[in-house]
Order: sequence, then C-alpha cells, then structure tokens
Amino acid sequence: MQQETSHAIETDALIIGAGPAGLFQAFQLGLLEIKAHIVEALPHAGGQCAELYGSKPIYDIPSVPVCTGQELTDNLLRQVAPFSPTFHFGQLVNGLQRLDDSRLEVHTTGTGQTTRFITRTVMIAAGVGAFLPRSLNLEGLQAFEGQQLFHSVQDPHSFENQRVVICGDTDTALEWALRLSTAKTHPYDHAARSVTLIHRRDQFSAAPELVSQFRTAVAAGHIQFIAGQATGIFAHHGHLTGLQLLLQDESSRALQLDQLLVLQGLSPKLGPITQWGLDMERKQLRVNTETYSTSEPGVFAVGDVNTYPGKKKLILCAFHECVLAAYGAASIIDPEKKPMLEYTTTSKRLHKLLNGSAN
Amino acid sequence: MQQETSHAIETDALIIGAGPAGLFQAFQLGLLEIKAHIVEALPHAGGQCAELYGSKPIYDIPSVPVCTGQELTDNLLRQVAPFSPTFHFGQLVNGLQRLDDSRLEVHTTGTGQTTRFITRTVMIAAGVGAFLPRSLNLEGLQAFEGQQLFHSVQDPHSFENQRVVICGDTDTALEWALRLSTAKTHPYDHAARSVTLIHRRDQFSAAPELVSQFRTAVAAGHIQFIAGQATGIFAHHGHLTGLQLLLQDESSRALQLDQLLVLQGLSPKLGPITQWGLDMERKQLRVNTETYSTSEPGVFAVGDVNTYPGKKKLILCAFHECVLAAYGAASIIDPEKKPMLEYTTTSKRLHKLLNGSAN
Repeated sequence: MQQETSHAIETDALIIGAGPAGLFQAFQLGLLEIKAHIVEALPHAGGQCAELYGSKPIYDIPSVPVCTGQELTDNLLRQVAPFSPTFHFGQLVNGLQRLDDSRLEVHTTGTGQTTRFITRTVMIAAGVGAFLPRSLNLEGLQAFEGQQLFHSVQDPHSFENQRVVICGDTDTALEWALRLSTAKTHPYDHAARSVTLIHRRDQFSAAPELVSQFRTAVAAGHIQFIAGQATGIFAHHGHLTGLQLLLQDESSRALQLDQLLVLQGLSPKLGPITQWGLDMERKQLRVNTETYSTSEPGVFAVGDVNTYPGKKKLILCAFHECVLAAYGAASIIDPEKKPMLEYTTTSKRLHKLLNGSAN
Repeated sequence: MQQETSHAIETDALIIGAGPAGLFQAFQLGLLEIKAHIVEALPHAGGQCAELYGSKPIYDIPSVPVCTGQELTDNLLRQVAPFSPTFHFGQLVNGLQRLDDSRLEVHTTGTGQTTRFITRTVMIAAGVGAFLPRSLNLEGLQAFEGQQLFHSVQDPHSFENQRVVICGDTDTALEWALRLSTAKTHPYDHAARSVTLIHRRDQFSAAPELVSQFRTAVAAGHIQFIAGQATGIFAHHGHLTGLQLLLQDESSRALQLDQLLVLQGLSPKLGPITQWGLDMERKQLRVNTETYSTSEPGVFAVGDVNTYPGKKKLILCAFHECVLAAYGAASIIDPEKKPMLEYTTTSKRLHKLLNGSAN
C-alpha cells in the first residue's frame, strides 16, 4: 500500500470544481483551519458562472445588488486568498476508491499526466459537470484526436501550409479562422494553405466585430465559408482525408482536409463522478441537509450537483451548503475536535487567520 | 368577522424583523412577485447586525471579503428597493391567530397604537428577538413608566428644572447626562435642576471622548456621579420619590428624584412569539429544511430564530433559508401556481421587476 501512495498528493480535503461553490467551500474549510486542494477542468477558476455569465449581470447574490459572473469569481478568489488553496487546473477527475486506512484516493487526468490525491474528504462542487469541448459526433472521427482532430489550438505552427477545416461559430472559431488564414490578423501567425469554416447557417454567435472581420476575410478570399454540417468522414490508410457535408440546400458535398479544428464551445459533462456508486436522483447527487454528505461517508456535494427536498439551483444556496459541509468534513478529519461556530466579526482566531496571511 | 378585519392591513406576506434575514426575505418574495410588509421593533432596518456590528468588519458574506454590519444593511436595502416593501418601524408583534378563512391575524403594538395585519403567510426573521431597552428590575417601578420612568428621551423639555437620575453607562446615558445638566452641550438644551448618573463602577462602555467630556462635567459639578446600583424605590401618594442605592463600599443610600431615565442599552427579547404555540427547541423555532416552515402552516422562520439539524447561526445561511421559505410561502399564497426557478441573469420577467421599478 505504501508504495502505491508514494507519489500521491496527501490532503485533508479535495474540492472538485473551482466555480463559486468550490471557491467558497475552500473559504469555509479555511475558517476551520482545513487546507484544501482544488481540481478544475478549465484552465481558470469561475466555472459555469464565469464561463456562461462572465460579463452578464447577476442580481441575487445577497447584499450585492448587481455583479457579473467574472466579478463574483474575482471577489470569491480575493475572499479565499488568505487560505491559499492549491489549484490544479485543466484536470479531470477519474476514479475514486476507498483505501485500507479509510482515506479516499482520487485520480485526475490532464494534459497527458495523471495525478493521485489521497484525501480524508472529497467535496464535489462540480456544478453541471466539467466544461469539455463540444465534439463532432461522427463515426470513426474520435480515432484522429490529437493527430488531425483538435478541440483547441496548442501549436499554431502545426497548421502551416495545411488545408484546415474549422467547425463552429464561436469567438474562438472565427478568431482562429482569421489567424490561420492568409488574412493573418496576428503578427506571428503563419498561414495555412487554406482555411474553411463550416457552420450550419450564415449567422454566428461570435462577437459582432469579429463576425464583421470574418466576413471581410471571406469576401477577400482569405477564408472559405460553407453553410452546412458534417455528416461523415473520409479516411484512407489511417489518415483523415475529408468530411462529408450536408449543405443548407439539402445537397451534399465532400470536402478535403489535412487538419480538423472543432471549436464549437464547451459543454458540461459530469463524467466519471456518476460511476462512483453514490446515490443519485436523475443527474444529481443525493445529500442530507445536515452536512450535505452524499451516501458515501467523507464525500460531500454542494451546489448545482446535489439534490435534496426543496433544492433550488442558486449560487447563494450553494454558499450555505458549503458551511454545513465544512463542519461535516471537520468531524471526519478530526472526530475528536468539535469545532464551535465562531463569528468572523468577533473571533480573534479568525482575525488572525484572515488577516495574518493576507499581509 | 368582516367588521373585525375592517381596519386591518391585508397582505400576502408579513415579515417580522428587518435584519439581514428579513430584508433578504422581502427580496426573495419580491422575485416571486409577492409583496411584503415588514414589522421591526427598532426605528430602523439592520437588526442585530447593524445594532451590534454596525461599524465592525464581517468577513464571511460570500463574495464580500469584508464589510461592516451597516454596509451590509445598506446593500441589502438597495437590493430590495425595487420591490419597495412597506416598513413598520417601532412595532412589536403581539398576538397571532388563525382566522376562519384560514388567513393569519397578527397584532403589533408601538408608540401607543395597535396595528392589525391580516396575512396569508408570516415570515419570522426575528433573530434573537426584538431589541428592547434593558430595564431596571425593581419592585413597583414599572407602574411609573411613561410618567416618571423613561427608557428613551422623547421630549427633553420635560426634564427642565427637575431632579433627574440617569442609570447606565452607554453613549446615550452619558450624552443625555451632559445635555440635561448645566453643562448643556447642545444649543437648545434646557437644564434640569440636577443630574445624577448611577453606574455600578467608575468605568463606562461609552465612547472615550464622551467619557472624558462626562468626567470634566462631573469635576466641574455639572453632573453628580454615583458608583453603585439601585436596589429599591421610594414612592409616596402614587409618586416615585427616590431610589435606594447600594454603593461600591457596601453602604446604602437614599437618592431623591423627580424623573428616572434608564439608558442601559438594548437587550433582545423573543417575547410573544414564544407563546404562539409553535414547536420550539430551547429558544429556537423548529423548522423543516424543505421550506423552513414552522410547525404551523403558513408560518415560516428564517435566520437565528430557527433551528434544524446542522443549523449554524450565520447570516449567509439565513439567505439560503429565505429562498426556500419564499417558495414555501408562494405555494400557500397561490397553491395553483407552481413558481419555476428563474435566474436573475437570464429571466426577462425578473429583469423587468428589478429594473422597471428602480428607474
């Protein structure tokens, strides 16, 4: 057993998700002097809230008449800063198992590496799931992932002199269409041989300014635009050679390519958590309202991922759940110690924690 | 029955308490288009939070790294403003009864008048109770209330040329001692014949500057200070004539007076609510965690006044309770209508409610 755990990160609390619930969970654990690691699928904190409502107003955060999703995230990050949780971005959770010493082992994967966490408690604050790229659902396509199929651009130079097809109408899709094309909007860009963007209609969800730049590049012949959708792939000797397209006028067409970039935005997936054997109701984890524990001792769930009688999927409800889950975790981490509720206004211990390390 | 209810205020929701929980309860009811009346014992909003922590920092309001109790109150008032709840300050709740038509009747009293509310739901957000003046517990003293015994100064002129005794060491106690004495710190003050301040020891909880002004006035003979406590009263022909004092050196002394001002600060009292026949545990109201309903249908309890397994007396937990209680109230006010959860970020209906009336 010792050998197996030798390269693992050991911690008292592992938080899954760095959205508002995950961040406030770390703060509440911090008040109880419990250090936390946070794993997050995205490369930054904020979750659904920053991803979907980044610049949109939220009106029901108590005592904050209005703020954007990004402002909320920034303020929660400032609030948790004194407790400096360790963030692990770009990590997806995988397996969960109980060790002989009753601790929990969680595996995460991200950018080719696997990380193992040995923890006393797991706080699932995964919202509607990890935000993963929305893929093209075409038979046989998956096999080319990382070779000719990409959901993000790691190295722009790899597209140089290639016939690139981009699927999507997002900011990212139009931006890369422009940057990889002979329009070359970025000083260090190297042009692809050709850039074709495919989207089912001639309307785009990208920012208006970007759309107008895109249309100019199409008119100038730097980019080809096809209104249609991919219905199949062509492959030859283990190489992806093209896409079968269904055009707006119901006709079909074959399109040759060297590289395929699918930039259709993100879609949340709860993924392996649903396989952990925890009690679920539809796609939510059942919790009790005393500690927000799931059916597995030591595994708690807060925010949009959980359910209980009366549940409302609101950020402000998640905050409350984080408090009670923190006390639930505390009683597992140290069953002897019964933490008393102290007020941040009056407790000298909490003042020291909050201000001591912030200086 | 009709005759009895003719002069009552009819409403869908009556909130008891204008502290953070009461204010956010009104906001959450507002999002569900339920208008609320709020009764509050103090002459202003904020409750315990503004009263005890008005200028002290609070660190655990989610996404607000630090704010004072007064700032929190001000922000909650701004947030609820679009729904313009009707405030009834200086009102204490009294009786609660169920009417024949299943609605609830609540009586409140304040400054000599009684108000009757006929409501479909009562949301108790009373915290640790109504903040009432801490009185002197002396046999027979109560009878002189409003004649020679006062717990606040309504009309400073009524003390002119009188022998005034003030009990207390608060800001208010020292301030009135100075203003009513021949020191006359306020341009419109009329001096009493004599001012004596009684406090059990020569140390005061009032602000340092006020204490130093007070000591100067005592040294100059404008005010008499006695370190001791009242143990009994003297009365003659239905008039209060003096107090029996126990001094610091254990000796006793009689002190003559015309008017007695007891300014010993506020102390919370849950009062008549404890007599409403609701299930209680110690001094808290038992609620379920699905709707935060008490044992009486239509009567909800949120914030420090309630209890349930896992309860933590935190403002942020009260906010969550307000949400679920609002939905609980909605299902009683209109059992046909099942309000769907909408997000303030995306709902056009909520935008209209929040911004329409704020313009």
